[in-house]
Amino acid sequence: MIRINDNFKNLEKNYLFVDIERKLEEYQKENPKADIIKLGIGDVTLPLCPSVIRAMHSAVDEMADKSTFHGYGPQSGYMFLREAIAKNYYKYNVSINPEEVYVSDGAKTDASCIQEIFSPDGYALVCDPSYPVYVDSNIMFGRKVRYLSANESNNFLPMPDETLNPSLIYLCSPNNPTGAVYSREQLKKWVDYAIRIQAIIIFDAAYEAFIEEKDLPHSIFEIEGSRECSIEICSFSKNAGFTGIRCAYTIIPSDLKIGNIKVGDIWSRRQSAKFNGVSYVTQRAALEVFSSKSQKEIAECLSYYKRNAKLISETLDNIGIWNIGGNNSPYIWLKCPLKMTSWEFFDYLLKNVGIIGTPGSGFGPNGEGFFRISSFGSYENTLEAKKRLELLEF
Amino acid sequence: MIRINDNFKNLEKNYLFVDIERKLEEYQKENPKADIIKLGIGDVTLPLCPSVIRAMHSAVDEMADKSTFHGYGPQSGYMFLREAIAKNYYKYNVSINPEEVYVSDGAKTDASCIQEIFSPDGYALVCDPSYPVYVDSNIMFGRKVRYLSANESNNFLPMPDETLNPSLIYLCSPNNPTGAVYSREQLKKWVDYAIRIQAIIIFDAAYEAFIEEKDLPHSIFEIEGSRECSIEICSFSKNAGFTGIRCAYTIIPSDLKIGNIKVGDIWSRRQSAKFNGVSYVTQRAALEVFSSKSQKEIAECLSYYKRNAKLISETLDNIGIWNIGGNNSPYIWLKCPLKMTSWEFFDYLLKNVGIIGTPGSGFGPNGEGFFRISSFGSYENTLEAKKRLELLEF
Repeated sequence: MIRINDNFKNLEKNYLFVDIERKLEEYQKENPKADIIKLGIGDVTLPLCPSVIRAMHSAVDEMADKSTFHGYGPQSGYMFLREAIAKNYYKYNVSINPEEVYVSDGAKTDASCIQEIFSPDGYALVCDPSYPVYVDSNIMFGRKVRYLSANESNNFLPMPDETLNPSLIYLCSPNNPTGAVYSREQLKKWVDYAIRIQAIIIFDAAYEAFIEEKDLPHSIFEIEGSRECSIEICSFSKNAGFTGIRCAYTIIPSDLKIGNIKVGDIWSRRQSAKFNGVSYVTQRAALEVFSSKSQKEIAECLSYYKRNAKLISETLDNIGIWNIGGNNSPYIWLKCPLKMTSWEFFDYLLKNVGIIGTPGSGFGPNGEGFFRISSFGSYENTLEAKKRLELLEF
Repeated sequence: MIRINDNFKNLEKNYLFVDIERKLEEYQKENPKADIIKLGIGDVTLPLCPSVIRAMHSAVDEMADKSTFHGYGPQSGYMFLREAIAKNYYKYNVSINPEEVYVSDGAKTDASCIQEIFSPDGYALVCDPSYPVYVDSNIMFGRKVRYLSANESNNFLPMPDETLNPSLIYLCSPNNPTGAVYSREQLKKWVDYAIRIQAIIIFDAAYEAFIEEKDLPHSIFEIEGSRECSIEICSFSKNAGFTGIRCAYTIIPSDLKIGNIKVGDIWSRRQSAKFNGVSYVTQRAALEVFSSKSQKEIAECLSYYKRNAKLISETLDNIGIWNIGGNNSPYIWLKCPLKMTSWEFFDYLLKNVGIIGTPGSGFGPNGEGFFRISSFGSYENTLEAKKRLELLEF
């Protein structure tokens, strides 16, 4: 007799962004004329850059001709892309072998599936608040999760707790949702801790392109010792606007072993049975992201979003709302005024100024009373949001 | 302390097609001038049809303009595609609601991941031989697997065994690797059995487009009662040549419930945390597959492969090798001559005539002594394979 996986009963009923989408739909049904500005989900709004578009057209043309057609690709990605990704790490003085690069259809897929290759024993350590996928995927798998408090007193950058002994440690830097970024010294402490307790760090670098301060690390692999204890996940979504194109990559160093088994080999074995590679057209687009021409075009997009972030942050300052983030990340993390809960402020913003953001409580218990605003909207919408927010007073 | 998931220790070391690829690489290193014809992995060789190419170009252009750009898409696919897929079932007199359609990046992903939403209790029933992904994914998850023997005496179409009580039943029709296709009457027995023992049938219809005989069912949903006990997985890979583009779909009827929980809702919850939708460009390409123009172009491609299948089958007949399949499927399933094992015949073909096929033993214990040849090569290569095979005598 078939039964539902019991672990699923321990999940929140809905994924956070599904809840937000439903709330919005309900509101729009009741208020069909409402002009809503969506600064909730972290979805980009600028189009793909021209060089990437050209690369995609050219790849599509290849698929039209028998002599250049591509069927099943290599499961971990075409070597042209794995090499380009590895080479891109040079700029951070990090040496990655292309064989250590695993191309996938999204950072969410990798961040949620990588934990399957490890024993469900013990527990995963997740900073609170953080991206809900870390928690959901572990719960689905039957692995316990413990939270580490990220709060104002530690600048939302919790450090190792020597009384804990997790098997997996999830770090996201720049952090989603708080925008906080670990320093080299802080990450070194995490790496030393992970090695000492024989845990693996899953380092989510999806927002690294937004780091502006020169001394902040973009990759866990900038840290000595990290190759023995870390997996890094990064994406083309937020830097190159690939949210609708779907391409990401995971780095598993050959030095990362459990006993004498390479973790990368286990991941390969998992992927060989549960994944079949990324579209050739997408991989050609991703390759083009690294060209110097694309890099210039992408830098312009990033500046555009960063200008939005600054605008939101300044506006919140002006109306007396405490906020951080937005300098090294695309997200502004604010404290709800008038002691509102996160969902109360969600409703407040929606009803009073027609702005959608993301309730902080959706990112973990510690997010209660906080709220995330995304800089990925258009400049015009962000400017309009500024005007509307300035009508409020706290 | 981190440990490897113990279930992974119960897997075969490599995925079948990875083993074949490695053997081929070794051989080519030793014989750099060898002219190898690859009829192993079931990968298409004809380019995408012109209408699909045009649709992709147009979708790429949309991604270049802010007003038509698409970011994150709906997790289960754009409604335009879900509706087209549902509508396509009309031709089999099957009524599917678009909300019952879940678009994904591949039938392999869905066939391997869907089992995660069910309890690992009990066991999965898998026909032997069959696509290795069913077994591998269940083993990784820690669910036991029992084989049901497909053999010459049952025409490679095993029927329910009343002494067994599986929670999941995997059926693939037309079968990979044997090419055998269940009749309506046979599927009805499977549906009745599944309902009686409260099991779920996972029906892999990836090769349905190759069915030629009029009375054979293309979908499990042609069978009365199936909506209460079945999930169907289908793909754009083998009909429209999307192996390098990546798009598939899974149908979970709203009538499929465990207690009062809809299985589709559990799958949605899983996908919301472990998947982020399919590329917009890919989904537009998939939509175009259903246009009448594309359908004509695709029918030509299918005829091309079917001609190959006939050629291979006739050649094998002529040289005295027992074989089936190839009429309602793209695969020819043959019995290795001279009592060779599957891998012995693999080596024999490679060394003597430079042809790569797939050892039957890779599809399960019952596949030992058998061998799969694919009709997805080019006509020229298939013709050359015919000539080479005719040099052999058994």
